[in-house]
Amino acid sequence: MLIALDWGTTSLRAYLLDNRGNVVEKRAVPLGILKVPGGDFEAAFEQACGDWFAAHGPMNTLACGMIGSRQGWREAQYVNCPAAMSDLALKLTRLQTKRGASFAIVPGLTCVNTLGVADVLRGEETQILGALPQDSASTQIFVLPGTHSKWVMTEAASVTSFATFMTGEVFALLREHSILGKTMEGDAHDAQAFDQGCDYAREEARNGAGLLHALFSARTLRLTERIAARSAYAYLSGLMIGAEMIEALRYFAAPRSITLVGEPLLVARYEQAARRCGVDAAIAHAETTVRGLWRIARAAQRASPSPLAGEGVSDGTS
Amino acid sequence: MLIALDWGTTSLRAYLLDNRGNVVEKRAVPLGILKVPGGDFEAAFEQACGDWFAAHGPMNTLACGMIGSRQGWREAQYVNCPAAMSDLALKLTRLQTKRGASFAIVPGLTCVNTLGVADVLRGEETQILGALPQDSASTQIFVLPGTHSKWVMTEAASVTSFATFMTGEVFALLREHSILGKTMEGDAHDAQAFDQGCDYAREEARNGAGLLHALFSARTLRLTERIAARSAYAYLSGLMIGAEMIEALRYFAAPRSITLVGEPLLVARYEQAARRCGVDAAIAHAETTVRGLWRIARAAQRASPSPLAGEGVSDGTS
Repeated sequence: MLIALDWGTTSLRAYLLDNRGNVVEKRAVPLGILKVPGGDFEAAFEQACGDWFAAHGPMNTLACGMIGSRQGWREAQYVNCPAAMSDLALKLTRLQTKRGASFAIVPGLTCVNTLGVADVLRGEETQILGALPQDSASTQIFVLPGTHSKWVMTEAASVTSFATFMTGEVFALLREHSILGKTMEGDAHDAQAFDQGCDYAREEARNGAGLLHALFSARTLRLTERIAARSAYAYLSGLMIGAEMIEALRYFAAPRSITLVGEPLLVARYEQAARRCGVDAAIAHAETTVRGLWRIARAAQRASPSPLAGEGVSDGTS
Repeated sequence: MLIALDWGTTSLRAYLLDNRGNVVEKRAVPLGILKVPGGDFEAAFEQACGDWFAAHGPMNTLACGMIGSRQGWREAQYVNCPAAMSDLALKLTRLQTKRGASFAIVPGLTCVNTLGVADVLRGEETQILGALPQDSASTQIFVLPGTHSKWVMTEAASVTSFATFMTGEVFALLREHSILGKTMEGDAHDAQAFDQGCDYAREEARNGAGLLHALFSARTLRLTERIAARSAYAYLSGLMIGAEMIEALRYFAAPRSITLVGEPLLVARYEQAARRCGVDAAIAHAETTVRGLWRIARAAQRASPSPLAGEGVSDGTS
C-alpha cells in the first residue's frame, strides 16, 4: 500500500492507495504547511495518517506540493525544464519519520524564460503527470488555475516550459482590500457579467491598454450603475481571468486548445473565459494529483527496488 | 481673501489666499473625507479654518477633491470631456455653511472611452488647470501619479480625454498583503533595482505577456536571490510603474513627452520610468492645486459677481 499526500499551503489531502493504485480511503485536514502548529510536520503527519499505519503497518509515503518548499518539512530540489516527467521519480527527496517507512517528496520544476528570469512550480508537476495521457506525443498546453495560475507546455511526456500568472492572488486582494471590493455584494456567479468583464479585458488589450487601466472599469461601472452590486464580483472575475487568458495565449503563441486541470468551479470559469476568447478548452479528469503520485511511486519502484518498493522494506520500528 | 481647500480622501490641505492669489498661510490636517468623525464636514471645516474666519471675517471658500464625491459633503457633478477648463467655474456646486460665506466645490470630469465605459476624475481637474501654461495651444499629456494614476490629454485649454490606472492601489496591496511583500525589507529607493523592474515589464510586454505574469518575477528573483530583500520594494515599484508607462503610452498613441504633476518623490519615480521608456518627462511646478483653485475662483468672479466675488457679498452672520 502507499500513502499519497497532496500537501499544500492551506490543506493536506491524504490518500490511502492499494497495491494497484486504487484509492481505499481519503481525507482532507486543515494542516497546510502554514497551519502546522510550531512547524511540527511529523505531528501533523501522524495526526492525518497515524491510524492508517496502526491499521496497515509500515507503508511508504509520497508527498507533493509546498511540503517540499523552504517553508515545508524539507526543501525538495527543482528540476530544470525541459524535464521528462519520468525523471521526477529519480529525483525524490527522502526523509526519515518516526514511522520508519520511507517518506519521499516529489521535486518541483523550474524553467528560465527568454528574459533570463526563472519561474517555478511545485505540486503542479504531479497534477500534470496525472493528467497526461499515457500515449501523449503532441504538444499540449495545460492550465492549472489557482492563487498562482500555471500554464504548462508539454511535448510527449516532457514539460518544455511554463509560466505563472498571479491572477488568483491579485483578485483576492482586490476583492478584500481595494476600493473595487467595497461596492461588491456577495460572490455569486453571473455568467453575463463574467462575459462582460472578459470582453472588456479583450477590448482594452486591442486598444493597447492593459489590466491596470481595465480594472478601473469595475469602479466606474458601479459608479454609473451599469453593473449591479451583486454582479460586480463576477464582472471583476471575468475581467481578470480574461486578462490572464489574453496574456497567456499571446505568451504561448496562440494555441488553439488548452486542457484545464484543477478545482471544478474554478475550471468552469476558465472554460467560460477560454470559450469567450475563441479557444477550445478540454477538462482533465478529477484526482490528477493522486494519479500522478501513483505513477511517480511506480516509476521510483521500477528504478530502484527500495525504499519506495513496498511494505517489505521498512523494519517497522517507529 | 479666499480659502482654497484641497480636500481629499486622507487629508485636507487648506490655503488662505490674499486678493492677488498669494498664499498667506497654509496647513494640512488629517481630516480627509474618510476620516471626518461622524461625517460632520462642517465641524471639520471649522476645525481646520475657524481661526481664519475669526481673524479675517467672512470669506468665500473653494474646494476640490473627494469632498465633492458621493461620500463627501455634497456630490458635485462630473463635466463631460472634451471640457474647456474655463467651464469649470460655471459649474460649481454650492452649499451653505454656518460661517455664512459661500462654499463652492469644483466639478469633476468624466469621459467615455472608445469602449463605451466611463472614466472619472475629481481633484485632478484643478491640478491640471493649475499646471496648464496660460497660453497653452498644443496637445499635451499630463500624468498625475497616485493611488489611481491619471493620464490626461489636453488640447489648448481643454481636457480632451483621460484614463485611470490603478497602479498605486495595486502596488500597496501587493506590498502589504501578498506573498511578494513577505520577502521585502523596507521601502528604500534603489535606482538600479527600479530600472531592472521597469526593464522587465517592458521586455515582458515585448514578449506578449503582461503584468500578471511579470509580477511573479518579484517572487522568483527573491527565491533565487538575484534581488536582495532590501531592493525588492524598488524592483516591484519599477515593474509596476513600468507596466503603467507601457500601457498608457500605447493607449495615448506613443506621445514623445509627458508632464508630471504631483508629489515630488513619486514624480521622481515616474520621471525615472519615463526616461527608461524613452519618453521626455517635464515636471510641473509645485502647488498646482492652489493655483488651479485661484484660477477657477477668478473665473467664477468674472462670470458672476456673486457669490464668489469677495468679502462684500456675505452678510457675515455665522
